[in-house]
Amino acid sequence: MAAPEHIQPTQSPKGTRDFYPEEMRLQNHIFEGWRRVCHAFGFEEYEGPTFEHLELYVGKSGPEIVDQLYVFKDKGNRDLALRPELTPTLARMVNQKGNSLRYPVKWFSIPRLFRYERAQRGRLREFFQLNMDIVGCNTVAAESDLVGAVIEMLKGFGLGSEDFSVRISSRKILSEFLDRLEVEASKKPAVYSALDKRSKIGEEPFRKLLREQEIRDSQVDRLEAFFQCRSVPELAALFEREQETPGLTELRELFALLAHLGYEAFLSLDTSVVRGLAYYTGIVFEVFDKGQNLRAIAGGGRYDSLLSSLGGASVSAVGFGMGDVVLADLLNGKGLLPTGRQGVDYYLADVAASELPRLELLLLAKHLRSKGLSAAYSLNGGKLKKQLTEANEQGARRLIFFGSDRALPGAYEVKDLTTGEQKTMREEEL
Amino acid sequence: MAAPEHIQPTQSPKGTRDFYPEEMRLQNHIFEGWRRVCHAFGFEEYEGPTFEHLELYVGKSGPEIVDQLYVFKDKGNRDLALRPELTPTLARMVNQKGNSLRYPVKWFSIPRLFRYERAQRGRLREFFQLNMDIVGCNTVAAESDLVGAVIEMLKGFGLGSEDFSVRISSRKILSEFLDRLEVEASKKPAVYSALDKRSKIGEEPFRKLLREQEIRDSQVDRLEAFFQCRSVPELAALFEREQETPGLTELRELFALLAHLGYEAFLSLDTSVVRGLAYYTGIVFEVFDKGQNLRAIAGGGRYDSLLSSLGGASVSAVGFGMGDVVLADLLNGKGLLPTGRQGVDYYLADVAASELPRLELLLLAKHLRSKGLSAAYSLNGGKLKKQLTEANEQGARRLIFFGSDRALPGAYEVKDLTTGEQKTMREEEL
Repeated sequence: MAAPEHIQPTQSPKGTRDFYPEEMRLQNHIFEGWRRVCHAFGFEEYEGPTFEHLELYVGKSGPEIVDQLYVFKDKGNRDLALRPELTPTLARMVNQKGNSLRYPVKWFSIPRLFRYERAQRGRLREFFQLNMDIVGCNTVAAESDLVGAVIEMLKGFGLGSEDFSVRISSRKILSEFLDRLEVEASKKPAVYSALDKRSKIGEEPFRKLLREQEIRDSQVDRLEAFFQCRSVPELAALFEREQETPGLTELRELFALLAHLGYEAFLSLDTSVVRGLAYYTGIVFEVFDKGQNLRAIAGGGRYDSLLSSLGGASVSAVGFGMGDVVLADLLNGKGLLPTGRQGVDYYLADVAASELPRLELLLLAKHLRSKGLSAAYSLNGGKLKKQLTEANEQGARRLIFFGSDRALPGAYEVKDLTTGEQKTMREEEL
Repeated sequence: MAAPEHIQPTQSPKGTRDFYPEEMRLQNHIFEGWRRVCHAFGFEEYEGPTFEHLELYVGKSGPEIVDQLYVFKDKGNRDLALRPELTPTLARMVNQKGNSLRYPVKWFSIPRLFRYERAQRGRLREFFQLNMDIVGCNTVAAESDLVGAVIEMLKGFGLGSEDFSVRISSRKILSEFLDRLEVEASKKPAVYSALDKRSKIGEEPFRKLLREQEIRDSQVDRLEAFFQCRSVPELAALFEREQETPGLTELRELFALLAHLGYEAFLSLDTSVVRGLAYYTGIVFEVFDKGQNLRAIAGGGRYDSLLSSLGGASVSAVGFGMGDVVLADLLNGKGLLPTGRQGVDYYLADVAASELPRLELLLLAKHLRSKGLSAAYSLNGGKLKKQLTEANEQGARRLIFFGSDRALPGAYEVKDLTTGEQKTMREEEL
């Protein structure tokens, strides 16, 4: 069929990536590190569709995310959107099953997500993100589990407390403090949004945003004092007489639990962590590298109202997301990603050149593969030297000189390409 | 942030799936079966973007696929399409690297693909598909490798030669035969398209399509004889004197090679296999279950012109795709999918009920997890009986009665939930 004249695209669309085998190996290293800890913590994997009905996101994910949606209509004229995050899908799936699920639900997923953002370091328009969520547990046992899992994952990748910290805060305590400042409930969402932007936009634009919400400068000064707190006792002192608000108690319990579990060096209280998403209701946390050159490695928190706002029962939930892009940048900068190719266990080199691979060689490859080993050979034949080059390029660990007259029947000349050692091995020893 | 009034979608979009942990486990079983054989055959994994520039598909994938594209514009007004297949992406990626790649390239991928089709059994609008491709090998050694891999995969899932067959044909030999019938080259694509529809639309509409291409009924009769051939010698007989066309030689070589490798029982010659995609040039094959209730399990072939038609060098290529939907239906029908939950190695039940999990119990869980074991416990506390129910529901393999006064310090009462056996174990024995 003759192809019509078209621009021939040789590049992937802007903000997306091609994963050649070298890059895919790094991705798989990250996916495996994530999966291993999720399984160790007893979480089960799930997945949802790549696109959802547009309504699932509008009014739930917050305006920043909705502005970045890839929206399209299907041929039935329905509005769909490529998923910008997985939490609304999780909420939908939990709501759909309702009481037939056993709570608490401990689920994880590694979805591919889509946000139309200005492409920049650490941000792409298409990326992978680990999601771990607990639905149906309303104590800090859930937050503790998730923060512990985040720390174990990053440790598993070779990072230590000198490399990253988990900054913990609480929407609840911020809300309690805003009550104390007599900020009206209806203004809180706009205040949260301003607070989330604070470090990016700077002092004056931040105060301006708050003034638009009729927050007085004296109130902003007290908020500044709130943001200066670096420990739960300091924070409690700001509450003066009434030092046992629900928000304070939760924070105290979570810090105590995580410290007892040996994670103290990884933690800090950071009341400036607010999280951009609209649906958080309690403890929130973000993970940053200590170089602070990068965006957050992970972030999450408690969202006790999302499921009911999507038509489900009132079920508490906590979760976090960890993207692949910032994490890979960080690991790469510290030399913590695997190098080279995955390689095969055996490369079968034919000492006699032939055009089609020799049948006996193919049968040996079949035999090795049936034993769970990986085996490759030259598909195009060629001289032995060319085959040896291919074996090296493919990262083969062992080389079999097939048809070598040095080997006895049923035995092979085998070279270990890691050590350089060469010996004769019987077929059953391979 | 108050949510505006919207329809609350509780269902996933039509033609897509929610994978709850039970279903995800089946998916992962299929993905692992695919990956295992790909690695055994020395293929490396790659991935591309979920959407591509629309031009990549138009005129390449064939009209049937282009009609089913999910098309949208990004905010930069570029035409994008959710990928309906991975081969154009593979071709783009190979072309982009050009001579810096070492050929032959042996790559596999498990992309998620999107086609707006009428939802029906075995067809969804969003599905996964294994792709295995060899680029840069122009002998049947490549086809043999891929057909061998398909058979090994399906055997790995528990299927035998009584369950499925690989039907092999060749675009090349069909083209040679059309030459012999003096069908003009310009009419061949339309003839291929008609042939691909033949079994679906029936005899009369098929002849009508061919008549539109000015194919005489006497020619159609000879085509029918071609389709009746069930072996390479029968086919050769149709070519009368000149029995060694390139197409015939290839088919002969491929059948001989696969037979020598022990795959004869899985193979048949089926000249009616044409494949819908426009870009095939040589041997093509499809895998069907022998019940024939389902659509093709896998299909592929040689496409030696696609890379150059996308602006690259003239490099030969062979590949196939195997979707998850038909395969899962088939395995499910034969009881070959795993049942139950994946489960955890240890469930830690606290004999004393408490609201927050006990610190010592959390430390034991942390210890087990650090040893690569999976461990779970009740996040919400509760009575022992409730915890035991949870352990069963979560498919735990072993139960630790934490805090049991029957156990000595540093030791635990452990119950094997598979055998029912209960004994005291020291921490290091767990």
